[in-house]
Amino acid sequence: MEDCLFCKIIKGELPGNFVYQGKEIVAFKDTHPSAPVHVLIVPKKHFADLLDAEKEDQALLGEIQLLAAELAKQLKIDKAFKVLVNNGRGAGQAIFHLHYHLLGGWKS
Amino acid sequence: MEDCLFCKIIKGELPGNFVYQGKEIVAFKDTHPSAPVHVLIVPKKHFADLLDAEKEDQALLGEIQLLAAELAKQLKIDKAFKVLVNNGRGAGQAIFHLHYHLLGGWKS
Repeated sequence: MEDCLFCKIIKGELPGNFVYQGKEIVAFKDTHPSAPVHVLIVPKKHFADLLDAEKEDQALLGEIQLLAAELAKQLKIDKAFKVLVNNGRGAGQAIFHLHYHLLGGWKS
Repeated sequence: MEDCLFCKIIKGELPGNFVYQGKEIVAFKDTHPSAPVHVLIVPKKHFADLLDAEKEDQALLGEIQLLAAELAKQLKIDKAFKVLVNNGRGAGQAIFHLHYHLLGGWKS
C-alpha cells in the first residue's frame, strides 16, 4: 500500500533490520524497542489491523503465531516472551499495517 | 489434562463466565481482569504454551486470531483492543494452558 511505512520496508524501499524474511511474512527489529528483544512480525499482505483480516487469512495468522514461537527460540527468549497485537490508536497501534510484537529478554 | 484449571473449565467441572463456546475454542471472562473488558480465548486442546503448538495447529491458532477480532466487535471494544499471549512464568503466564488475552474497553 502506498504511504505505508511497513509496506516500504517489506519492498526494500526503506531499511529494516530483518531477523526473518519468508514468503508471506517478515520480521524485523523495532526501532524503538520496549523490551531488550523487540521484534515486529509482519505479514507482507497489507492489513490495516486484525479487523481487516478475513477467513481466507486464517492460515497466515496461524503461521504468524508459529513463527513467533520459532523466532523466540532463535532469539533465545523462549523461556519468557510475549506476543502482542495492538489494534486501534487507543490501544497503542501507531502503524496501520497489522503487526505482532514479539517481546522478551528481560532479566530473570 | 488432569489438574489443569482451564481444562476443568472447558469440561464444565469448574464454572466459567463464557462469552463464546465453539467446537475447538472457548472464551470466558478473566476472573482478575486487568482491563475493563478482559476475556481469555482458549483452545480446548491442551497446550502448555505457544512453544507446545505444532504445524498441525496452525489453523487453530489462526482461528483464535480471527475470533479475537470477532469477539472484539461483539463486545464493542473493536475501536481499541489488544490480543496478548504471555509465554513462560517470567512473561506473566500463570496458567499453563495456552490462552490469549483479549483486552479493551478503556475510556478514550
